[in-house]
Amino acid sequence: MTKTVKTAQYGCGKMGRYLIRYMMEKGAEVVAAFDNDPSVIGMDIGEYIGGGKTGLLISDSRDAEKILQETQPDVCVIATTSTLEEIRESLEICARNRINAISTCEESLYPWNSSPDLCRELDQLAKEYGVTLTGSGYPDMYWGVLIDTLAGSMHKITKIKGVSSYNVEDYGIALAKGHGAGLSTAEFAKQIGNHNNLGAEEQQKLVTSGEYVPSYMWNQNGWLCERMDLTPISQVQKCVPTTHTEDLYSETLGMTIKAGNPTGMSAIVITETKEGITIETECIGNVYAPGDFDRNDWTFYGEPDTTVNVNRPATVELTCANLVGRIPALIKSEPGYITTDKLPNNVYLSKKLGEYI
Amino acid sequence: MTKTVKTAQYGCGKMGRYLIRYMMEKGAEVVAAFDNDPSVIGMDIGEYIGGGKTGLLISDSRDAEKILQETQPDVCVIATTSTLEEIRESLEICARNRINAISTCEESLYPWNSSPDLCRELDQLAKEYGVTLTGSGYPDMYWGVLIDTLAGSMHKITKIKGVSSYNVEDYGIALAKGHGAGLSTAEFAKQIGNHNNLGAEEQQKLVTSGEYVPSYMWNQNGWLCERMDLTPISQVQKCVPTTHTEDLYSETLGMTIKAGNPTGMSAIVITETKEGITIETECIGNVYAPGDFDRNDWTFYGEPDTTVNVNRPATVELTCANLVGRIPALIKSEPGYITTDKLPNNVYLSKKLGEYI
Repeated sequence: MTKTVKTAQYGCGKMGRYLIRYMMEKGAEVVAAFDNDPSVIGMDIGEYIGGGKTGLLISDSRDAEKILQETQPDVCVIATTSTLEEIRESLEICARNRINAISTCEESLYPWNSSPDLCRELDQLAKEYGVTLTGSGYPDMYWGVLIDTLAGSMHKITKIKGVSSYNVEDYGIALAKGHGAGLSTAEFAKQIGNHNNLGAEEQQKLVTSGEYVPSYMWNQNGWLCERMDLTPISQVQKCVPTTHTEDLYSETLGMTIKAGNPTGMSAIVITETKEGITIETECIGNVYAPGDFDRNDWTFYGEPDTTVNVNRPATVELTCANLVGRIPALIKSEPGYITTDKLPNNVYLSKKLGEYI
Repeated sequence: MTKTVKTAQYGCGKMGRYLIRYMMEKGAEVVAAFDNDPSVIGMDIGEYIGGGKTGLLISDSRDAEKILQETQPDVCVIATTSTLEEIRESLEICARNRINAISTCEESLYPWNSSPDLCRELDQLAKEYGVTLTGSGYPDMYWGVLIDTLAGSMHKITKIKGVSSYNVEDYGIALAKGHGAGLSTAEFAKQIGNHNNLGAEEQQKLVTSGEYVPSYMWNQNGWLCERMDLTPISQVQKCVPTTHTEDLYSETLGMTIKAGNPTGMSAIVITETKEGITIETECIGNVYAPGDFDRNDWTFYGEPDTTVNVNRPATVELTCANLVGRIPALIKSEPGYITTDKLPNNVYLSKKLGEYI
């Protein structure tokens, strides 16, 4: 069936710009857009994405439910915040109005191991209303599908080690602070490294209860285990401050970080599995020094050792393109909170979105 | 169904060593092995792979048909030579005896665009006897599945550029000579670069007729187009000599290549497609200078530009592991000459081969 896919955009910030343009360029009809920022509410989405007027204005997020009811998109794309609890309401609104939803929210990629209760609730709700909820983005492909795919060419894997980095300057002050940028070493140890020495069970308990918000790699390791049919037996995270040898000015924080003080952090998540494969993933988020750039390096240890690098990946664009590529599978999927490890791999969309449904 | 997969190994050279070990370590029962080299015929396969005796001896390839009839393996792995015509007989023997076959033969990965008539014949034969024939190896994953997979995260692709290199010293004198190593520049132009200036139609005609044996990238571009649902409208190859700034001794050739003379070649295949995507793949095979190493670099141009590298890939091991990973899909596939673009992606085999069937 060839049809025009109707979409809505929830969150018109940095990502929304790409998401709306990509969806339009792939032939989707964007029928609604929401944000809570007064400076974009009322703006034509065409102008918001840097083009000509379209006649569709960005609405206040408070009117989302009403407008979604009226416009009945096939899919709503949610690009607002990073935890499932924070996007819960928008997911619920979508589900209740029988609209599939997909989010850039980092936790939404695989919330089963960090917010299992909430994820189960949303799964129930989605099934009740016959819709699919999920999360995607850069990690979906570059920390997930890519790794699972290459694993298929290894004879033996004993360990998978991944390192990814990003500049916290690019994502606003909350994220920079959350990564410990600008703290003293002592403050970092107290505020961010305070769970480093807890065992796997204690950490999991704190994560599940919501008291400890782990890094995105916590979810990623869960995704990888599920996708690769591995059974995790323990998972721990350590947060280590990153530093620079010289003073470093952070525009986002509006301050200079002294040489040797935390510029951000490296979160290392180590998962041991019943099958004997260790997954060790490291997520480095800090204020970049001159010459730093985004990295995405993965090594398989075993036979043969194999390392793959993605050079200076354009994380934001890849997040948005990969998410848009998920739309056909999302529409065709069975109902529920279906994480992307359960969906077929994306294909390059050389035709309109509707031709893939 | 859990069963023990029975396999045979046709060709006990450099690859066979890994293939047999990998199959055994994945729980397959190797029931036959063949070679035409008197120095390995009669050798216990356990000793051949560097372990203890197994009781199974390597047989003369001339007895292959009889032994295959008797042993009835599920799959025969053919690791002998590089063109479909050269492995034709072994494929036919397998098909006639209702044994699925998979080869490391480079052309066998996608012979539809280089030996279409022979491929159709084999396809018919395979269908007649209800078996599946195919080819796999390093290119299957690292020039194929990997590229198709990552393409799914791009918004727009205008061009895919791949560069892969290997040391001709590793593959015997025939291959080194075939790559022009040791020729003078004038001899190279006459013997290897002689089709460089022909148009796409003329080149295709020569390739189809068997007069011009193209590089592996000729087949690869065909595989990628088929897998990515792209329609090729023209395809040309240029062979350019590679050189080194100093004299370079080649052990395989037993000679010193003078500075500036061909050390091998770079074959560049350019495919234009109806969908506006250009696939430009470059295969560099030459006598390595000190410090050279295998490369596998691919760039997607479009939005966003993205480059992926595999660092110093272990081509031989990855060829064998990836091929063994294809065995379950091969057994489950419909009959015919089914190139791997039509098969599901490999998964990492954490269990025995038989558990995937």
